[in-house]
Amino acid sequence: MTRTVDVPDLVDRARAGQPRAVARLISLVEDASPRLREVARALAPFTGHARVIGLTGAPGVGKSTSTSALVRAYRDRGERVGVLAVDPSSPFSGGALLGDRVRMGEHATDPGVFIRSMATRGHLGGLSWATPQALRVLDAAGCDVVLVETVGVGQSEVEVVSLADTTVVLLAPGMGDGVQAAKAGILEVADVFVVNKADRDGADATARDLKHVISLGRRERADAGWRPPVVKAVAARAEGIDDVMAALDAHHAHLRDRGELPRRRARRAAGEIEAIALNTLRSRLGTGQAGTAATRLAEQVATGTLDPYTAADHLITALTT
Amino acid sequence: MTRTVDVPDLVDRARAGQPRAVARLISLVEDASPRLREVARALAPFTGHARVIGLTGAPGVGKSTSTSALVRAYRDRGERVGVLAVDPSSPFSGGALLGDRVRMGEHATDPGVFIRSMATRGHLGGLSWATPQALRVLDAAGCDVVLVETVGVGQSEVEVVSLADTTVVLLAPGMGDGVQAAKAGILEVADVFVVNKADRDGADATARDLKHVISLGRRERADAGWRPPVVKAVAARAEGIDDVMAALDAHHAHLRDRGELPRRRARRAAGEIEAIALNTLRSRLGTGQAGTAATRLAEQVATGTLDPYTAADHLITALTT
Repeated sequence: MTRTVDVPDLVDRARAGQPRAVARLISLVEDASPRLREVARALAPFTGHARVIGLTGAPGVGKSTSTSALVRAYRDRGERVGVLAVDPSSPFSGGALLGDRVRMGEHATDPGVFIRSMATRGHLGGLSWATPQALRVLDAAGCDVVLVETVGVGQSEVEVVSLADTTVVLLAPGMGDGVQAAKAGILEVADVFVVNKADRDGADATARDLKHVISLGRRERADAGWRPPVVKAVAARAEGIDDVMAALDAHHAHLRDRGELPRRRARRAAGEIEAIALNTLRSRLGTGQAGTAATRLAEQVATGTLDPYTAADHLITALTT
Repeated sequence: MTRTVDVPDLVDRARAGQPRAVARLISLVEDASPRLREVARALAPFTGHARVIGLTGAPGVGKSTSTSALVRAYRDRGERVGVLAVDPSSPFSGGALLGDRVRMGEHATDPGVFIRSMATRGHLGGLSWATPQALRVLDAAGCDVVLVETVGVGQSEVEVVSLADTTVVLLAPGMGDGVQAAKAGILEVADVFVVNKADRDGADATARDLKHVISLGRRERADAGWRPPVVKAVAARAEGIDDVMAALDAHHAHLRDRGELPRRRARRAAGEIEAIALNTLRSRLGTGQAGTAATRLAEQVATGTLDPYTAADHLITALTT
């Protein structure tokens, strides 16, 4: 498909809040379009504004409902909101999360809300590649807040958490107790815990267990002064959302007051740059002079005329000259 | 611990078949010793000889028993045998697999057998880093065959499979049927299937299911002409081991006749070199001039004065000048 793309015009229209322009830009970065670099350059001056909030938790804890409730709360404040729904296990190749779409339906016609589902198609480094770039699009499009929703399973979740200024971990009574959360390494990354479906039996026990585990845990992160609060909510009825918002604001203020916000964002950018650089180098191995060198070096190592470390030194030279 | 290491002497003694020298060399590569490069250089001229056979399968299918039976069979032919037991889930930090040690006990005093358990300690890239180097030690020490035994779970297994000339996937009746194997992507990597514990109920059904799934599957690998045989065995009683050996020999001959053996080994070396090169570059990001550049670039991207792709270009330049 050869469709002319006028990147500066797209960026202008995205900044003016046109949903189709925003969607088109995200598609360009998600598909690793040849125009990717041009898009990135055009977006850069308008980024660095949005607060990024990650939401994660096991399937069934009510992530989409909670995300939707938070969207409403931020909209009530008059803020522009972006949502990136990342589901590494989604079988839909285009990444559409039907459940989200349905639940997010109330926001579908709101010009102050951009919702995008992303699947992890795995090309060019998967999540770590496309999601930060989609985030930049929403940031440049004037979103005050971007909510990144992920299924709380494994590596891809941790990658997405690393994008967020504030990470919210959702639990539900009788589903994932505090100990399980601790096992999953989730204590390490959570800034705010929400016990959702708090009208169910066992909500108090879950909250209590969680607080106990938090009191035992040592926080390894730079903001050791922050103890993650545990907030109870019933997102489906919008109960407790004020408390969640208060916790999110408190964490944001904490980061800001300690000068931690720019540090966290610089760390995020560092990871992003490194991933792009290593991917770029890796892709050079398949083609041109570096590719030829890689093939020759592999043969030498396979036949024992060269050791792999010396070969790696030669490969680095070939990659970079 | 500062212990003088005379690498050339160690290599000489390993080549003479001294188990302690072999063990010491593997420790040096496994611990990413500063002498790693020297060890790799000293080993290179003596590598490229060993046949590498990967064995994988779910816990309980009898991997260690089968490995032990194969060790015996190769020893009966007068060949020198190495065993690398890799268990990514092993809780023993030193990587000792007690079960293996006990079952391998019969070979413990055989000077023609080297057995090494490796845990995936995850430093410097984990499995993909240390196992190929340990393999080189056993190869240089004169092993005709190296058996690499892994638990058939997830990514690390696939990494280890990529080391092997021939990959054996073990199943047992009523444990992992053909469909499960296909799901796990194991059909893609298996060159030989062994239905172990074939004296149990359901062995014929498992073998039949497996053959059916194989007949449906398309082989993506270069050796599309090879259809993986399904062999039944009772490794604990050494029944069917002759058939397994015949299947291994047939696959080896197939690879050799098609010129696939050097290609497979070159591909393996290419992956190994690439992993070392990217790790080397990544480690440079933390220190010196490249580290300083990385920090500065991250700040510029975080504040929107630079886009991440241009930053990555600068980073590559900083890494390589």
